[in-house]
Amino acid sequence: MEDTLRELKERLARVTDIDRISRLLSWDQQTMMPRAGAATRAHQLATLRRLSHELLTDDETGRLLDELRPLETPDGNSDDAALVRVARRDYEKAVRVPGELRAEMARAAAQAQPVWVEARAASDFRRFLPVLERNIELRRRYVECFGTVDEPYDILLDDFEPETTSAQVETIFDEIKAELVPLIGELREREVEDSFLQGNFPVDRQERLAKSVVELFGMRQHSWRLDPTEHPFASGAGVDDIRLTTSYDPQTMNSLFSTMHEYGHGLYNHQLPREITGLPIGGPSSLGIHESQSRLWENLVGRSVPFWRFFYPSVQETYPEQFAGVDLERFLAAINHVRPSLIRTKADEVTYGMHVILRFELERDIVNCRVELAELPEVWNARMHDYLGVDVPDDARGVLQDTHWAVGLIGYFPTYLLGTVMSVQIWEKLVADVPEIEGEIEQGQFTELRQWLRVHVHALARKYPPQETLRRATGSTIDAKPYLAYLRSKYGAGVAA
Amino acid sequence: MEDTLRELKERLARVTDIDRISRLLSWDQQTMMPRAGAATRAHQLATLRRLSHELLTDDETGRLLDELRPLETPDGNSDDAALVRVARRDYEKAVRVPGELRAEMARAAAQAQPVWVEARAASDFRRFLPVLERNIELRRRYVECFGTVDEPYDILLDDFEPETTSAQVETIFDEIKAELVPLIGELREREVEDSFLQGNFPVDRQERLAKSVVELFGMRQHSWRLDPTEHPFASGAGVDDIRLTTSYDPQTMNSLFSTMHEYGHGLYNHQLPREITGLPIGGPSSLGIHESQSRLWENLVGRSVPFWRFFYPSVQETYPEQFAGVDLERFLAAINHVRPSLIRTKADEVTYGMHVILRFELERDIVNCRVELAELPEVWNARMHDYLGVDVPDDARGVLQDTHWAVGLIGYFPTYLLGTVMSVQIWEKLVADVPEIEGEIEQGQFTELRQWLRVHVHALARKYPPQETLRRATGSTIDAKPYLAYLRSKYGAGVAA
Repeated sequence: MEDTLRELKERLARVTDIDRISRLLSWDQQTMMPRAGAATRAHQLATLRRLSHELLTDDETGRLLDELRPLETPDGNSDDAALVRVARRDYEKAVRVPGELRAEMARAAAQAQPVWVEARAASDFRRFLPVLERNIELRRRYVECFGTVDEPYDILLDDFEPETTSAQVETIFDEIKAELVPLIGELREREVEDSFLQGNFPVDRQERLAKSVVELFGMRQHSWRLDPTEHPFASGAGVDDIRLTTSYDPQTMNSLFSTMHEYGHGLYNHQLPREITGLPIGGPSSLGIHESQSRLWENLVGRSVPFWRFFYPSVQETYPEQFAGVDLERFLAAINHVRPSLIRTKADEVTYGMHVILRFELERDIVNCRVELAELPEVWNARMHDYLGVDVPDDARGVLQDTHWAVGLIGYFPTYLLGTVMSVQIWEKLVADVPEIEGEIEQGQFTELRQWLRVHVHALARKYPPQETLRRATGSTIDAKPYLAYLRSKYGAGVAA
Repeated sequence: MEDTLRELKERLARVTDIDRISRLLSWDQQTMMPRAGAATRAHQLATLRRLSHELLTDDETGRLLDELRPLETPDGNSDDAALVRVARRDYEKAVRVPGELRAEMARAAAQAQPVWVEARAASDFRRFLPVLERNIELRRRYVECFGTVDEPYDILLDDFEPETTSAQVETIFDEIKAELVPLIGELREREVEDSFLQGNFPVDRQERLAKSVVELFGMRQHSWRLDPTEHPFASGAGVDDIRLTTSYDPQTMNSLFSTMHEYGHGLYNHQLPREITGLPIGGPSSLGIHESQSRLWENLVGRSVPFWRFFYPSVQETYPEQFAGVDLERFLAAINHVRPSLIRTKADEVTYGMHVILRFELERDIVNCRVELAELPEVWNARMHDYLGVDVPDDARGVLQDTHWAVGLIGYFPTYLLGTVMSVQIWEKLVADVPEIEGEIEQGQFTELRQWLRVHVHALARKYPPQETLRRATGSTIDAKPYLAYLRSKYGAGVAA
């Protein structure tokens, strides 16, 4: 049994290595690669994907897993039990999908991406429609690989948020929607002066500030870097090699919030347990749990009163032209200003959820053939009006704004809001466990915060599915109430500060 | 036959992809990687090496090659014939060496590298001795995998300069030595004023100048980048993704020459024929041919009168504090000043060869057990005195100066001088074919030069061994005479300008 386990670990460690290498190549592609290298890079990434898929789906993996079945006791709490459970799940999902279909999905996504860029630039949905149709058709074929299912969207969702169903998401999202729509209606009339958030924010100063906030929040020295890119993300080649990215707009200080967000992702990757880092259980639990970490640092820390009591002087000093006459209270009101808008990635904490709910419902309607793809812009615009009260002036700022559908990521969007909801649950448990945490943040101390997250969330890695991870960290599975209470208490009665 | 050929190509294209990906990871390691990522990176590189080795040495590769034997006609000039010939050679070499020995060699090299860094810092050869012994012992075992051979060094050399023997190298090097020793003796007495090459060379200006020289020499837009590193090299992920590196010393302008050198390597990679780029015949012919390209741009262009007639004004303008009162003639005399020195990488064109010859002879003596490893410093110092007339003050500037032996690269050094010799042969053929080339360089025009290299050298890629490549490019195999004549005519009679 021990030999078999060692063999399995060696085989899966290779798969993990290849996946990490792929992530590094993607990071390079989005930060360093000379533009002309794109075609070769796509080809190399496809080669790695094929290699990792072949290693995972090889009969030998199945044979080893069969031999190790005795380890999979239902109460198996050991790393080895978790490993065999997670590996079997990965294996059984992977073998259902023919390599040819996977390759075709990757190719179609790669071909659709530049078409989306063009279509968005021209604000012309019709140009995007054929490649979208192809992506959706391939997802339907993907779903079919899993036999007859009640809800095809479950299959897609499972790739991003394992063991989570559309019905569960629907329940949570309906509860959120019922509260958010009236709250947004109430807040949309409130006038807040925030003109000083627009102006002159020199990129070199933004870069200095972004690096200083990562240093302040904390990561081991010489184990991270921060680079500019177009669409910010966090990645890395291992716990000691974290790559954060952000994007600098010389007219706003948005890079600071995006850096805090990516720091949250990066810290999760950084604090994953070293001893299982090369195994399939050594990664993050799900995209939702990942997002709970980024939203926690971006919002619950990064838009909070205690943090800004500590940090605002640095920002004022960095941009005296913008903030010399602006006191902390006005600054906090401005960065927490709620205003329904067109673009998800620029939305405030309150309206953000409605952007995600819209996409989740729409994706489900698409997959279940309840919406014609050709009619997407009309449906999108009508729902934006219903949910957020905004009128979409063109497809570029409407249905074409996100890249996800172009690259075949259907089922990904819900994780943004699931993560946001979970971030508040995690935060409340953290404050209950460490009541002095807000006082520490006000002193610019983040050690205990990082520590708590490491022990209660990051240490669980991918040993359990996301809801079990959350339950072990907080005592409860996902629950919208703390999130809604947080929004009401922060935004309902008056402005934050 | 066609199907078999396609299968072989697919299999070998994967090997090529993996090797290219490894090269990109190494580039990242040396330019971007946070320091703490080193251990994980070493592990990931080992995984890729194992994967590529397994794919290449799989029985299936052998079976395909056997079926394709009819293609290997001796006069087979087609790409397919070359492919099968090259692939068989790679395969037959690879299968002789057990994976375990290869892994051990890689591990020993990885372990020796930091020991070398420490030993050099402390200038203490004794600290380096045990890891060197281990590296040499492993090379002996590697040689043994190839059965009984007359000259074990031939096996090692073949990995860097295929189908080239120690005896051939010895003949060439002896001829060179016989000329260089007296020439150096003559030149060492010559006084040249070059104090202005030391001083204040701000790094940002060096960087601007280095990029401008790459743009001037020419590469397709958006297909290259130049980054700082400790030990300059050129690498890349494909013909459209070239990564040049250089290192900036704020007290000298050496980065400019190192950039021209790496440009030569990069241009070779950049101009390899696109249609075979994914196959084993699509790479460079050998390290010697590679070096002929870097030395051609660094020396035959970059230290020439025509080039500096064009470029000196830019350099004067960039560093007015250093060169305001220095005319072109004095500048040329200074950059071509011959002075025996301790460090190979900083040697001038004339003395450089003696550094390489010393290492070649020493490596051969080591491999043939004619020199005790423990006595290396004494032998080194004595030969440096004989060959260059310099006294080595310590091991750091003596036997410990290069990293090659620490990372197991035995048999690599000769390619530096072979390449330098071939660079002059190639240059002479080029000037004969395109007599106007020197006039063009004086106008800052490099299109025809790049073109000629592309058609006559780069297009041959790895279809032929290096000597056949050289013969097809110039009509002759390696010959020291043009090189020696060049040195005599440039340095023997008087200074360059």
